[in-house]
Amino acid sequence: MKLWEKGIPTAKQIEQFTVGNDRELDLILAKYDALGSIAHAKMLGQIGLLTTEETHSLVEALEEIITEVAKGNFTIEDSFEDVHSKIEYLLTEKLGDAGKKIHTARSRNDQVLVDVNLYLKDVVNELKEQVKTLFDLMMDSAEKYQNILLPGYTHLQIAMPSSFGMWFSAYAETLIDDITLLNAALKVVDQNPLGSAAGYGSSFPINRTFTTKELGFETLKYNAVAAQMSRGKSEKTVAFAMSSVAATLSKFAMDVCLYMSQNFDFIGLPGHLTTGSSIMPHKKNPDVFELIRGKCNKIQALPYEITLITNNLPSGYHRDLQLLKEGLFPAIQNLKACLDIAIFSIPDITVKEGILNDKKYDYLFTVDTLNEMVVAGMPFRDAYKAVAEELESGNYQSPKATKHTHEGSINNLCLEEIKMKMKNAF
Amino acid sequence: MKLWEKGIPTAKQIEQFTVGNDRELDLILAKYDALGSIAHAKMLGQIGLLTTEETHSLVEALEEIITEVAKGNFTIEDSFEDVHSKIEYLLTEKLGDAGKKIHTARSRNDQVLVDVNLYLKDVVNELKEQVKTLFDLMMDSAEKYQNILLPGYTHLQIAMPSSFGMWFSAYAETLIDDITLLNAALKVVDQNPLGSAAGYGSSFPINRTFTTKELGFETLKYNAVAAQMSRGKSEKTVAFAMSSVAATLSKFAMDVCLYMSQNFDFIGLPGHLTTGSSIMPHKKNPDVFELIRGKCNKIQALPYEITLITNNLPSGYHRDLQLLKEGLFPAIQNLKACLDIAIFSIPDITVKEGILNDKKYDYLFTVDTLNEMVVAGMPFRDAYKAVAEELESGNYQSPKATKHTHEGSINNLCLEEIKMKMKNAF
Amino acid sequence: MKLWEKGIPTAKQIEQFTVGNDRELDLILAKYDALGSIAHAKMLGQIGLLTTEETHSLVEALEEIITEVAKGNFTIEDSFEDVHSKIEYLLTEKLGDAGKKIHTARSRNDQVLVDVNLYLKDVVNELKEQVKTLFDLMMDSAEKYQNILLPGYTHLQIAMPSSFGMWFSAYAETLIDDITLLNAALKVVDQNPLGSAAGYGSSFPINRTFTTKELGFETLKYNAVAAQMSRGKSEKTVAFAMSSVAATLSKFAMDVCLYMSQNFDFIGLPGHLTTGSSIMPHKKNPDVFELIRGKCNKIQALPYEITLITNNLPSGYHRDLQLLKEGLFPAIQNLKACLDIAIFSIPDITVKEGILNDKKYDYLFTVDTLNEMVVAGMPFRDAYKAVAEELESGNYQSPKATKHTHEGSINNLCLEEIKMKMKNAF
Amino acid sequence: MKLWEKGIPTAKQIEQFTVGNDRELDLILAKYDALGSIAHAKMLGQIGLLTTEETHSLVEALEEIITEVAKGNFTIEDSFEDVHSKIEYLLTEKLGDAGKKIHTARSRNDQVLVDVNLYLKDVVNELKEQVKTLFDLMMDSAEKYQNILLPGYTHLQIAMPSSFGMWFSAYAETLIDDITLLNAALKVVDQNPLGSAAGYGSSFPINRTFTTKELGFETLKYNAVAAQMSRGKSEKTVAFAMSSVAATLSKFAMDVCLYMSQNFDFIGLPGHLTTGSSIMPHKKNPDVFELIRGKCNKIQALPYEITLITNNLPSGYHRDLQLLKEGLFPAIQNLKACLDIAIFSIPDITVKEGILNDKKYDYLFTVDTLNEMVVAGMPFRDAYKAVAEELESGNYQSPKATKHTHEGSINNLCLEEIKMKMKNAF
Repeated sequence: MKLWEKGIPTAKQIEQFTVGNDRELDLILAKYDALGSIAHAKMLGQIGLLTTEETHSLVEALEEIITEVAKGNFTIEDSFEDVHSKIEYLLTEKLGDAGKKIHTARSRNDQVLVDVNLYLKDVVNELKEQVKTLFDLMMDSAEKYQNILLPGYTHLQIAMPSSFGMWFSAYAETLIDDITLLNAALKVVDQNPLGSAAGYGSSFPINRTFTTKELGFETLKYNAVAAQMSRGKSEKTVAFAMSSVAATLSKFAMDVCLYMSQNFDFIGLPGHLTTGSSIMPHKKNPDVFELIRGKCNKIQALPYEITLITNNLPSGYHRDLQLLKEGLFPAIQNLKACLDIAIFSIPDITVKEGILNDKKYDYLFTVDTLNEMVVAGMPFRDAYKAVAEELESGNYQSPKATKHTHEGSINNLCLEEIKMKMKNAF
Repeated sequence: MKLWEKGIPTAKQIEQFTVGNDRELDLILAKYDALGSIAHAKMLGQIGLLTTEETHSLVEALEEIITEVAKGNFTIEDSFEDVHSKIEYLLTEKLGDAGKKIHTARSRNDQVLVDVNLYLKDVVNELKEQVKTLFDLMMDSAEKYQNILLPGYTHLQIAMPSSFGMWFSAYAETLIDDITLLNAALKVVDQNPLGSAAGYGSSFPINRTFTTKELGFETLKYNAVAAQMSRGKSEKTVAFAMSSVAATLSKFAMDVCLYMSQNFDFIGLPGHLTTGSSIMPHKKNPDVFELIRGKCNKIQALPYEITLITNNLPSGYHRDLQLLKEGLFPAIQNLKACLDIAIFSIPDITVKEGILNDKKYDYLFTVDTLNEMVVAGMPFRDAYKAVAEELESGNYQSPKATKHTHEGSINNLCLEEIKMKMKNAF
Repeated sequence: MKLWEKGIPTAKQIEQFTVGNDRELDLILAKYDALGSIAHAKMLGQIGLLTTEETHSLVEALEEIITEVAKGNFTIEDSFEDVHSKIEYLLTEKLGDAGKKIHTARSRNDQVLVDVNLYLKDVVNELKEQVKTLFDLMMDSAEKYQNILLPGYTHLQIAMPSSFGMWFSAYAETLIDDITLLNAALKVVDQNPLGSAAGYGSSFPINRTFTTKELGFETLKYNAVAAQMSRGKSEKTVAFAMSSVAATLSKFAMDVCLYMSQNFDFIGLPGHLTTGSSIMPHKKNPDVFELIRGKCNKIQALPYEITLITNNLPSGYHRDLQLLKEGLFPAIQNLKACLDIAIFSIPDITVKEGILNDKKYDYLFTVDTLNEMVVAGMPFRDAYKAVAEELESGNYQSPKATKHTHEGSINNLCLEEIKMKMKNAF
Repeated sequence: MKLWEKGIPTAKQIEQFTVGNDRELDLILAKYDALGSIAHAKMLGQIGLLTTEETHSLVEALEEIITEVAKGNFTIEDSFEDVHSKIEYLLTEKLGDAGKKIHTARSRNDQVLVDVNLYLKDVVNELKEQVKTLFDLMMDSAEKYQNILLPGYTHLQIAMPSSFGMWFSAYAETLIDDITLLNAALKVVDQNPLGSAAGYGSSFPINRTFTTKELGFETLKYNAVAAQMSRGKSEKTVAFAMSSVAATLSKFAMDVCLYMSQNFDFIGLPGHLTTGSSIMPHKKNPDVFELIRGKCNKIQALPYEITLITNNLPSGYHRDLQLLKEGLFPAIQNLKACLDIAIFSIPDITVKEGILNDKKYDYLFTVDTLNEMVVAGMPFRDAYKAVAEELESGNYQSPKATKHTHEGSINNLCLEEIKMKMKNAF
């Protein structure tokens, strides 16, 4: 069933090409489409375009659809173009004229806008929760391993002393910035586009403030053209925030893969978190973290894909926009899976003690040595030269351990302050 | 079945996460995997690591698998990690020890490399054929409509006379450059990586020249590390060529959508190539070309996705590379579908005659007017000023039609030369 | 002068290659570098590593440098690697040992981090002001032209009535979402990295809370490794927000270019805002808006460039990060220039009245017609079919004007509500 | 001087904004612009639109300009919009009417097209030469160090034996694929667009075959609209090829940085190729290779930037295209600089002998061990299990060295075959 059927058949090939995999992707939106329709029906009742009875029966039928969706029973057959057509069909089949009235004062354009915004609100809130859980686990590991030293690198060269506490809590604190972006994305999608119809509003006396409250949006996207223009922009803003989370996870995964290498050998993963090779019997590979890295890098291509699809399109709806779901929805599933698997794996990362006993790490303390000279009164640049000469002549003696006391240093990680910062940002 | 099973179970979540949707994507590779195994088995026979009988039975069993794949009967159940495991299982189940021997002197790393290269060779050749068909149709339309004038625009402002012949053959000639890139991609994937094993070769006395000939590759990727490094690079090179085709198609689709707008009204599409609106009963929308545009724009994000996944990975295999299939394979299907639908639709595009009768197009001929002055002896810059003054004072009279004679101009489209150029490039 | 000179000369080619165009880009950071050094010097005084006198003379000398920067007198000669080296040189030359002490307890790594964050805070605040000015001007135009109708398009096909008030305020309301992203970027860069030294802190008893207050940062980036990791992430977050603004501007510019085309002819630009052609004397081209579009599209590549530079680098500083300035700083100048020129041009856009008198726009009102049937009691789907039949038979009569009353529709633009929303978001 | 000046002044701000940094970038094109004008003048002479004398004096004057460009004396003052205006001014000033006639039958649109194609032809040929030189040096190092073993990694885990010969020649062989893409780019830019004028040809009886031969192009871009459409496509095709080279270089640089780390310690760089730290006196950093990596990663963003600028623009010139130079020209300089510095540095890379003596590399030979069992008759999967058990029980004894004989393995690098392949591809 096509909502716009007027008697001229569309070529079979055209139909397949234009519908694409929309039916599959739309299953994710079914619940939100029904929720949007409930609010719309109630509003149509409130302004008198539906009778109380019609409203009541529509709401009831839509709630049943939501129940069926939750049970996994809702399907979109090949005879329907999309979720909107299927639900309108179900309502019309069940309720007759009341069903035919549900599309009054709206278009599929604002229907999908409201569906996507409702869905993305849920997505962003779920991502925030996952990020918070990951943060907590990283902070736990930071606390647990705060006294175990680790070499710090610059240019991949041995540089200065770090610690596992420093390493885990660095990623935790970075996640707070990702929360800031997720919050911005949430604000951008928390606006009601319903009532913008095909992108220019309509002549019906609808009450958009009513549906805004009903659907729990913080505000309206007032201007109907602006509401239509948010298609693509909402998705991209969420994609920016997802990219931010993904970049943090990807970098952490890169560190894990490097630290797992026998040439670093700083951390370990239990057998159930590694995989083997089809030809090398000795291999225990960190595939999990390689795939977190790869998937998160792929996610970072999403905003650019969205930009390419939407760029240089003049205002007003274009069918190109339908393709936004194709990239976004699987990326959301992938990011959630990466966060889940990181949450699952991080507590199992084991850390090695006594790493710094290896002679090659002696140089880590040259800065501490020269700092002592500075505290004793020598200007920094002179102390720098003195230690450089000791190194050149082979006379440098490493102190092997010193105390760093300032905020955010290895012996003063400020874990409580970081937790408070997350609490404030969340 | 995991080829590397050693008794320590991998966590269920880890298994799901690491396998991802590989089973589905690997179905596309099944034929090529079997072909690669046939060549490998023959080579193992040739160097004496398999008996003639073993070789024979392996080849036979693999050919049966190819038949089953062609019939659509081949499946990869959840108990197998990938196509390689499934086929090795089938061979072992059927042939016992001979099956266990097929993995001798190779790794899944070079197996997937050879599968992907064989597949991409087919893909690029198919794309070339489709592009050639599209070229032919565009040249047909150019010939058919070569005398029907069209306004030419610069800055979206009315500029100079063009024609439908010019417009159609412009896109046709542009497709020749896309063929050049497809040919480069073909050359890059037409190298045999089989025998590079896990990326460092092996101690087996294999004969890679034999498998190269057997599989019809133009040459070997000799160096085993280079063969492994081609993972990602092959895909990206094909993606570059696909992007090139996609950019041409996308631009053509943009023109079609613009020219279909009532404000241009240069071309038309029959009813069976348009779609309607759920609320506006008057709409006949060019969704087909909007979706060609959108899908082709999405395809242009593919090289960047590949770059993001592979970038800054040191040499040697990383599991991240598995994710390359996920973006590439559907993009290939999409580009083929876009080419098919363009091939299907282009002959049905109708063009409008007499467009230039509209008074607003009079300015198209100002350059022709001033050119006449130049040919009559006035320096170009002076003629330019003279016509500018006529325009300013409202005295400009448009000649409405003139003759352009040089190569590639509206009255001398050089269609035969362009056809010859395609023939040479193909 | 190189701060790390140890007697082994670096090859000339290497020096040129590694310094690149840093000296030029660093001029933008000079003021912020001096501000960072003032706070650092005061803190070293507070913890007793500098005497009161040393602190005083350093602060004075740095303030003089800021004055010279403001006058345009500050330069970085070829003998210096960067702004940090030049300023340290000036201080040492003037103050002797006190100058040599300024680098105590810091590294160029945290110096550039603090410089960039201070700079980006200013940038984001300036962008916010520009966006607000643009918003105000668009709202002014929306108010001024709110009753002048414009055809609304979907699929570039004539769809439903819109208005210039709708069009201008649509872009204005969209800018509010860009402010939300700019605010998120501001929050991310408003954290003090000073004291993280080379990315692992130091053994000096520095007081980072002191420099945080002194520099006016909202909070510290506590963890030294997290502070180092913010390099690239800060830039990318600002680039996301810049992309968001750029996308809005680019889309508006696309509309302007289309509406300026003689085939639309909806708006005009005065002569001083257009440019001509070197061969077509009749041309008045909207180059300004084409360049806004192009530059803003280019800016949208920035986050991708940053991602490519930083992706898959393990934690800890890498020299690659130096290249971030090269893309970001000119992009900032370009976005500011685009906003300035848009602010300069928008009030001069003239709009055409009576556009809808053209017969081709009659179809704009089909939805209004069917809505009347619906209000009169006919189910929506039945009314849709009735109007479709009228259209098919050529009997459709356009009402030519109707009243749209709901929030955000052409006759109820909610301009005050949109202004309030901007006020709340700013 | 503006070629299209008609008496209405353009606002100062508009002029600055629209010209941008074109004058600076156009200096690179000056030589090619003069070359294009010489061919154009000769052709105008040949068809009788210029007298023999006029042609002669124009050619002479243009050759003088080329001489001045070569001497570095050519400048584009603020009073000129671009290189085309400046050269036309010089000719008119010197030759009067003959100068005014040079713009006959062309537009700045085809002028810049021909300039850019001529320039890009030179660029691609230079890049090919540099890549060949780099190839030769890598092959030299491969030959020199072919017997020095190196651990091979998969998943960054110790995997199988490799060698420096393998490593160097892997990158060399990969460069051959980059040559294939450079050749494709060369073919795409080796087409003459001159005569397409503003994108629609002209009514002048010009001889485009004449200028094609004169300028040394392989063929014409016949269709005038296709010639105009090549703007952006030429640049992108070259950018694809540049990206391909850049990806190879970047990956090599990543390996170098990793192998320089004390945790790998496989290679060394002499002092004059390293840099130091401003606070850590012991540092010798591989900044050169980090910057090659970073710059080459940045270059890989170029095709995306080009796509964003050109995407979804309908056919015909748009001013946005002017911005293509801004990204492309510096990227070309950067890639050349990266190749130069790689060529300069690679012969100085020192390799460490005896790396495999370290006990942690014993596992490298497990595959060789099991291969021996296979050659002795045990099925591969059974041998795999046997070695896995030895490893588990701690009884595994590494053979420490074995012979790999197949094509492209560590003891049979096929360097001559690889050289021949490059020769054929070049």
